[in-house]
Amino acid sequence: MADYRTHIQVLTHHCDATGVVNFSRYGEMAYEVVERWFDEALDWSFWRMHHGEDLAVPIVSAQSSFPAASRSGDHLIWRLSVVSIGRSSLDLSLSATCGGEARASIDMSLVLSEVGFTKPRAWPDTARARIADYITGIAAD
Amino acid sequence: MADYRTHIQVLTHHCDATGVVNFSRYGEMAYEVVERWFDEALDWSFWRMHHGEDLAVPIVSAQSSFPAASRSGDHLIWRLSVVSIGRSSLDLSLSATCGGEARASIDMSLVLSEVGFTKPRAWPDTARARIADYITGIAAD
Amino acid sequence: MADYRTHIQVLTHHCDATGVVNFSRYGEMAYEVVERWFDEALDWSFWRMHHGEDLAVPIVSAQSSFPAASRSGDHLIWRLSVVSIGRSSLDLSLSATCGGEARASIDMSLVLSEVGFTKPRAWPDTARARIADYITGIAAD
Amino acid sequence: MADYRTHIQVLTHHCDATGVVNFSRYGEMAYEVVERWFDEALDWSFWRMHHGEDLAVPIVSAQSSFPAASRSGDHLIWRLSVVSIGRSSLDLSLSATCGGEARASIDMSLVLSEVGFTKPRAWPDTARARIADYITGIAAD
Repeated sequence: MADYRTHIQVLTHHCDATGVVNFSRYGEMAYEVVERWFDEALDWSFWRMHHGEDLAVPIVSAQSSFPAASRSGDHLIWRLSVVSIGRSSLDLSLSATCGGEARASIDMSLVLSEVGFTKPRAWPDTARARIADYITGIAAD
Repeated sequence: MADYRTHIQVLTHHCDATGVVNFSRYGEMAYEVVERWFDEALDWSFWRMHHGEDLAVPIVSAQSSFPAASRSGDHLIWRLSVVSIGRSSLDLSLSATCGGEARASIDMSLVLSEVGFTKPRAWPDTARARIADYITGIAAD
Repeated sequence: MADYRTHIQVLTHHCDATGVVNFSRYGEMAYEVVERWFDEALDWSFWRMHHGEDLAVPIVSAQSSFPAASRSGDHLIWRLSVVSIGRSSLDLSLSATCGGEARASIDMSLVLSEVGFTKPRAWPDTARARIADYITGIAAD
Repeated sequence: MADYRTHIQVLTHHCDATGVVNFSRYGEMAYEVVERWFDEALDWSFWRMHHGEDLAVPIVSAQSSFPAASRSGDHLIWRLSVVSIGRSSLDLSLSATCGGEARASIDMSLVLSEVGFTKPRAWPDTARARIADYITGIAAD
């Protein structure tokens, strides 16, 4: 299946005093892409997850690279695909491009856990099935 | 030489709806630690770098892990050390602990460049000498 | 003419440790609404304004009220209208509702000035004409 | 009694693409000043308030002005004083200066309420007594 795509326009407040998007704002955007994907593609809103089920998906590790700078007004196309899914873990690969130029690449590992980040929990079957639709051909295991 | 140390207290606005520090806020804190280090240890404020010299140190890649969650009120001790310095690159290792417990570990590569992130520039000798004071014994090359 | 409308979905990172949108994030959203309005309705992107014309529209004063809390997943409908326009000033009225319930009301005064906030500049005629389309019937002068 | 004072250094990420502190970041700083004041002056950490007592102090209204711009590296001196305290409300006056120059003035009304912002609660006597120490001579009622 195709990867999940969404876009985010770079705003003035995403940029810092150097005029380009600050490192930390890419993290915020990546978190937003994950939240949109859960909501739109998995039909599992973070509101319901956090408050109705006392679950959360904290990011436990990430590797990122930023080959070129982004400026306010840039339309970033974000792509998200699933690298692998474990009992309670999930490895995602996100990337952002603008006009075909690579701007950000963020691989991250999430863990489904109780809110407050204490005990891992197994992915429910429904979620697992939907997540599997986004496993990339190359990296799937 | 010893690593650079500074502390940041976790505030309510660093935490998201799950009650713990959001991924992107760790990035913001790490960026703050780097900015403090340049200012206090290298005597090179980002204001002077950005506006007086048209230089910047964008983060071009980072690897991070978050072994345990942080909550508002937590006092995080951040440590920064230099892994290696190249002609215009700089590899840093940052970590945050709270009461001895590891909370965040962020390794990052910076590049000294013209503001706007186009052309790399060689580290000035004065800065290079000061940066060398923070090279860790283990990882230095 | 009708007011300008846009919507923003509340995300997990907009909320703080109390589970609802933090005060400062409403300010960020309001700034985003103004930036979208300049871009979409006035055809004047902040990128061009800041970097092509060395102009900016800093907020010099604001009055805000937050009658009810917002949570992640809420769809906020933001409305923006012009209260009055002076030689270089601009008074805007913004409000956010969710399902008909008032969530935020922010009145603000901007001043067109040189980047860095030093000297006020008169609104160009083209912008002035487009801005006038959003003057509210009640508050126009 | 004297007002509460604390300082915040302006960082690169507080500034947006125009090179000066963004509107929304002043709101974040003001919220930080309030949180520090509760913690240090009232001995009432937001962690204990939010998680131990299920209480919060949402900002229900604010009036702010920003007479001059702030840049990275500026040391802002923030002052906080109490204008008045009601059964569950609290009116605060905050201001930030740099080298004697006024940069921000933010008056705000808080309400002690249950977490999630539903029911107002009366200030406990201990807190009320400590808060009273910060009532300004001029504005006290």
